[in-house]
Amino acid sequence: MRTIGIAMLLCVSLCFAQDSTSNFKPASSNVLDARFPQVDSNSRVQIRFKAPDATKVKINFWSGEKADMQKQPDGFWSFTSKPMAPGLHYYTVVVDGAEVSDPGSTAYFGGSKWASAVEVPEAGADYYLPKDVPHGQVRQIWYHSTVTGTWRDAFVYLPPDYDTSKSRYPVLYLQHGGGEDETGWIRQGKANFILDNLIASGSTKPMIIVMANGYASRAGYVVPDLSGKPFLGPEFIKVMQERMGAFEDDMTQVLIPFVDKTFRTIPDRDHRAMAGLSMGGMETFQVTFNHLDLFSYIGGFSGAGNPFLTGTRFDVKTAYNGAMADPSAFAKRVHLLWIGVGTKEPERMKSGLESLHTALEEGGVKHVFYESPGTDHEWQTWRRDLKDFAPRLFQSTASSR
Amino acid sequence: MRTIGIAMLLCVSLCFAQDSTSNFKPASSNVLDARFPQVDSNSRVQIRFKAPDATKVKINFWSGEKADMQKQPDGFWSFTSKPMAPGLHYYTVVVDGAEVSDPGSTAYFGGSKWASAVEVPEAGADYYLPKDVPHGQVRQIWYHSTVTGTWRDAFVYLPPDYDTSKSRYPVLYLQHGGGEDETGWIRQGKANFILDNLIASGSTKPMIIVMANGYASRAGYVVPDLSGKPFLGPEFIKVMQERMGAFEDDMTQVLIPFVDKTFRTIPDRDHRAMAGLSMGGMETFQVTFNHLDLFSYIGGFSGAGNPFLTGTRFDVKTAYNGAMADPSAFAKRVHLLWIGVGTKEPERMKSGLESLHTALEEGGVKHVFYESPGTDHEWQTWRRDLKDFAPRLFQSTASSR
Repeated sequence: MRTIGIAMLLCVSLCFAQDSTSNFKPASSNVLDARFPQVDSNSRVQIRFKAPDATKVKINFWSGEKADMQKQPDGFWSFTSKPMAPGLHYYTVVVDGAEVSDPGSTAYFGGSKWASAVEVPEAGADYYLPKDVPHGQVRQIWYHSTVTGTWRDAFVYLPPDYDTSKSRYPVLYLQHGGGEDETGWIRQGKANFILDNLIASGSTKPMIIVMANGYASRAGYVVPDLSGKPFLGPEFIKVMQERMGAFEDDMTQVLIPFVDKTFRTIPDRDHRAMAGLSMGGMETFQVTFNHLDLFSYIGGFSGAGNPFLTGTRFDVKTAYNGAMADPSAFAKRVHLLWIGVGTKEPERMKSGLESLHTALEEGGVKHVFYESPGTDHEWQTWRRDLKDFAPRLFQSTASSR
Repeated sequence: MRTIGIAMLLCVSLCFAQDSTSNFKPASSNVLDARFPQVDSNSRVQIRFKAPDATKVKINFWSGEKADMQKQPDGFWSFTSKPMAPGLHYYTVVVDGAEVSDPGSTAYFGGSKWASAVEVPEAGADYYLPKDVPHGQVRQIWYHSTVTGTWRDAFVYLPPDYDTSKSRYPVLYLQHGGGEDETGWIRQGKANFILDNLIASGSTKPMIIVMANGYASRAGYVVPDLSGKPFLGPEFIKVMQERMGAFEDDMTQVLIPFVDKTFRTIPDRDHRAMAGLSMGGMETFQVTFNHLDLFSYIGGFSGAGNPFLTGTRFDVKTAYNGAMADPSAFAKRVHLLWIGVGTKEPERMKSGLESLHTALEEGGVKHVFYESPGTDHEWQTWRRDLKDFAPRLFQSTASSR
């Protein structure tokens, strides 16, 4: 074991010589001391990928450039991007038709696999970085679900003073997007550092954040064979509704009681919020509007509701069994309805959120509509969403603190 | 966002038809509902990897078979292994010279990258699986190190009754191997489930486990250019000693005080243990023998000491400044000296541990030597090590509980 141990101990910093010919620097999202990917002061990204015998290697930024990489004499392939928006950009590399991750990158769970991503810093923005402020802890918890019949885990952020105070705290349930999992809001989103910094600034109430896995199937449920069935056809929708329903039941019947039993929460609707990104926003609207007895703060980050499931346009008078039909009563009952979208998101996403915003506005339903300038359907949008959303929570309601 | 969200929500279970022609089943280490890798009742592993345009695809089990995969008409490449030992087996796939991870596998940090691995169940062994017993929590904590000048994180297992009792607990510092990181003992090792089960059985004292990152460099330290210098030559060793020393200082000067301040520990040497695997075993011997005022339980899992650093054979009379020169005094001071190795580990690893065992035995130094039957330099060895090691801790020393 000694040779292996030593090689590892050294290789992480020594196997790569320093590059001093430009201001490209290793990305903060790299593993240990990996030299690539790199980012320069113009937010350009350089990738280097070893594939000595490959015929064709392509770079695939999921919300960005897709291009051929250039073969170098040393067996590596390289690519330099155009200037990119700030934030964490998922990507994969396609090696002779095999879509794979880059060993130089930390692996982030996205696209239903452990994918690569590169962090492009945002000038002047440090709200999601670790700073010299009190830090909360993130806990992984395990619970057995009577809904799914399986052990499930969740991540829980506890505010910095949780262990030293005797206070009880409000809770935000915060969901990842489609193809991601319960690790996303910490690893990609930096939700813990965002909350540490917001709480330290005094703008945001200390709160607990629970991040659950957004996928569930009821015990014994067998997914029917959908081969040959049309995408978004009735059979497809039925399976999706089944799984969304299992998630809703797991959250409301198992997870919330488990959290309220395990942590010092304030276990009432005035002190319980839910938000989610993309698919998590769909889940948020389904769970919260079906359980307004449990939630009074609602956030949809680049995803809100799922009107295609009912096949109808969003109508504030009838949506969610008429919960918003009386806007004044709704505003008293729901302390915050918040939706957000990045201005560079694909048109179908932007228009979906904008039409919801317009419908709410025309219907006189009080809400916040936030647009993240210059960002796509990516994590920088959702970090900004959380930064705008969290300070609005639990301010108007009495606290036991 | 809707199309993406829906596709993700479904694809994880629907994109793969069921395979009913054998008793191969998806591995528990797969992502979400990925169909491959699979394992059968004879502990054979099947891998399927998509690379439609590749010329050559090889499977690379790090402690096992390395072989060409077979191209299938559908653009996938397949491989079926011989029966494998139980446990978690790291592997990569080599696509036309590019060594990459398998998107069907959960990513585990090993070999200084996020690698693939497949879990082969061990018949009759459930000590590392989640069971219907009280579960401890795993917390991620962040601390600023005055040694490295950086923010560092660690994972901390708290026993099931930590939040509901007012007790103080002994602490085990438990280190990963070379090329791994602080996530290894939970994600690969299942240390939390092992402790949950041991504590529930009554055999093991409830304890806190701290899992730190085993790599450190002092603030301002610049790694010298080692190109052209011989592997394990004096320049090489010097860098390694520098980094090991930085790790030792970070642990003893920053992390231990931080842990004792943050958690309800019993902050004395009688209630503090350290163990580690492979490189972590080297670190354990360096840290504990240099700080016997801090530690009284010592474990080396497939790694113990680092005699090549001093260039001398292990001599119980002189090793570690003569700490073991008086075996009787040493046995009173150090409550447990424990070393372990898998019987199928490579010869150089086995012989290293065996010669240490022999030297200790001949020198009359009380210790435990554990051999894990049939397992290699892999996680099943280290899970078994922890299962044997943990119940021996903190039994002979008074507790404040």
